Amino acid sequence: MRILVTGAAGMIGRKLIARLARDGRLRGEKITALDLHDIVPPQAPDMPGVEISPHTGDLAAGGAAERLVASRPDVIFHLAGIVSGEAEANFDLGYRVNLDGTRALFDAVRLAGFKPRLVFTSSIAVFGAPFPDVIPDTFHPTPLTSYGTQKLVGEALLADYTRRGFFDGIGIRLPTICVRPGKPNKAASGFFSGIIREPLAGQEAILPVPRSVVHTHASPRSAVNFLIHAAGIDGDAVGPRRNLSMPGVAVSVGEQIEALERVAGAEVVKLIREEPDATIWAIVKGWPTRFDAKRSKELGFFAETSFDDIIRAHIEDELGGKIAG
Amino acid sequence: MRILVTGAAGMIGRKLIARLARDGRLRGEKITALDLHDIVPPQAPDMPGVEISPHTGDLAAGGAAERLVASRPDVIFHLAGIVSGEAEANFDLGYRVNLDGTRALFDAVRLAGFKPRLVFTSSIAVFGAPFPDVIPDTFHPTPLTSYGTQKLVGEALLADYTRRGFFDGIGIRLPTICVRPGKPNKAASGFFSGIIREPLAGQEAILPVPRSVVHTHASPRSAVNFLIHAAGIDGDAVGPRRNLSMPGVAVSVGEQIEALERVAGAEVVKLIREEPDATIWAIVKGWPTRFDAKRSKELGFFAETSFDDIIRAHIEDELGGKIAG
Repeated sequence: MRILVTGAAGMIGRKLIARLARDGRLRGEKITALDLHDIVPPQAPDMPGVEISPHTGDLAAGGAAERLVASRPDVIFHLAGIVSGEAEANFDLGYRVNLDGTRALFDAVRLAGFKPRLVFTSSIAVFGAPFPDVIPDTFHPTPLTSYGTQKLVGEALLADYTRRGFFDGIGIRLPTICVRPGKPNKAASGFFSGIIREPLAGQEAILPVPRSVVHTHASPRSAVNFLIHAAGIDGDAVGPRRNLSMPGVAVSVGEQIEALERVAGAEVVKLIREEPDATIWAIVKGWPTRFDAKRSKELGFFAETSFDDIIRAHIEDELGGKIAG
Repeated sequence: MRILVTGAAGMIGRKLIARLARDGRLRGEKITALDLHDIVPPQAPDMPGVEISPHTGDLAAGGAAERLVASRPDVIFHLAGIVSGEAEANFDLGYRVNLDGTRALFDAVRLAGFKPRLVFTSSIAVFGAPFPDVIPDTFHPTPLTSYGTQKLVGEALLADYTRRGFFDGIGIRLPTICVRPGKPNKAASGFFSGIIREPLAGQEAILPVPRSVVHTHASPRSAVNFLIHAAGIDGDAVGPRRNLSMPGVAVSVGEQIEALERVAGAEVVKLIREEPDATIWAIVKGWPTRFDAKRSKELGFFAETSFDDIIRAHIEDELGGKIAG
């Protein structure tokens, strides 16, 4: 079993690779080789006896994708991409990396003529307001960002290339990943993780939107579970509609904070400071809230069932089981 | 008022140009210049005093789109594309013309920095079975052809480029255009027009599917009306969801034939010969049937209200008002 991971240096890429290293197997088969690609040098995991090939560079550059798939991996996890804020700030870079890079990879696989399972991380950013209360699987994607547009194009190509038999693709639309580890960032969605992560680390967090804002979350651990499950799922059972909204926990910000209090206590919650930010709220208003995700659940994808579990996953996976304070 | 038409040599392109020549105006303004583009030399209309500039070539070729928009037209009708059957038979050509050509045009407008109204002809081929009885405007596009995929990508780019302020785009999803003038062709949808056109010309027509098949149609005349209306519509009233399913007449094949009998008599209908074709039926089964088209109707788009009117439009526009026999 040979596996290629693009975006291998990113947060989800690193967690996926750590999981693959821990499992040593995918789809019941022993992992023998791992191709890791990113724009910066990806870190090689400690996997004795497994051939690890790091690749660094721009996937959209001439010949890069061809070289990357020359090893004919059995499973490709295509996670590479630049994030929403960056794709919005830099039009050319976003289209180059997220659209041209994805198309280059898909075409390289097509032209090489092998037929791997290809798992593509899309995003709920393919959707744009207004929404029904619960977004059904049949709701139309009308993105309100260039990032969402680029993901939608990737989805469309993935479905057509799969239908054509060039590869066996599964697109998974990730909800907001929470609690995102690491430092606070300037992303408009950053506070969803920040109001949990910073207080658990004994630090103050800013809440820029009303507590009534509802959003869907899944833990980084669930994101990796989605990827692993997508790698093994029966393509015939999926049928021609290859892009699936993943399950998640839909909660209001107020419910996030209540869960934090249940898990970590009232003192921790006091570190959240409300500081309304009209700009951030205007952006967040355009985001989807709740998903039906009926198809993905029927196909065996699962996430946490409560926000308490999402917080506990963070404490276990990132804080060694301990809360500061 | 300077207008650019791509796909100017195609059936709808020619009818649009004839209409523009007849009207002499668009959006209440006098037409002063017309740029006509196609892969084969487009025919120049007789418009005294109007500067007509024909362009021939591949829109996806380096520099072609830039040269085409150098005249900074006020309105662009982007009709160019290869048809469904050809895009399915020739993967590379379909993506090159329908996706790369469209993106090249959009990028040329973006980089030139003027902000025309850009009307893009998409298609109900962006949808793929299974469908609800009536397809709402919010139904997800999951194309089952490469052509539909390429149109969907064009729609996504059009919406994003419009949101970014690069141009003011309107995508119109055409239903099946019926009665299509000219010779019978090998398109799977050809019979929808053939069973009307051939008998009206005194010739036999083959019906390869059951009479119960339901499909949505609009006349070539309505297609031109859609384009003219899309050129003038208020973009703010459309909002960010820039791609609209056009109205049409949803009828069964049996109802098409009943309409033909009402308009042209029982003898004409006898020229239709039923000859079931499993291959054609398998393709037609995957096509959408009825559309809600609520948004486009609210925005002032209109089509025929009965199939009788569609037949009469054909007799008036193509047969000089006369039926053979």
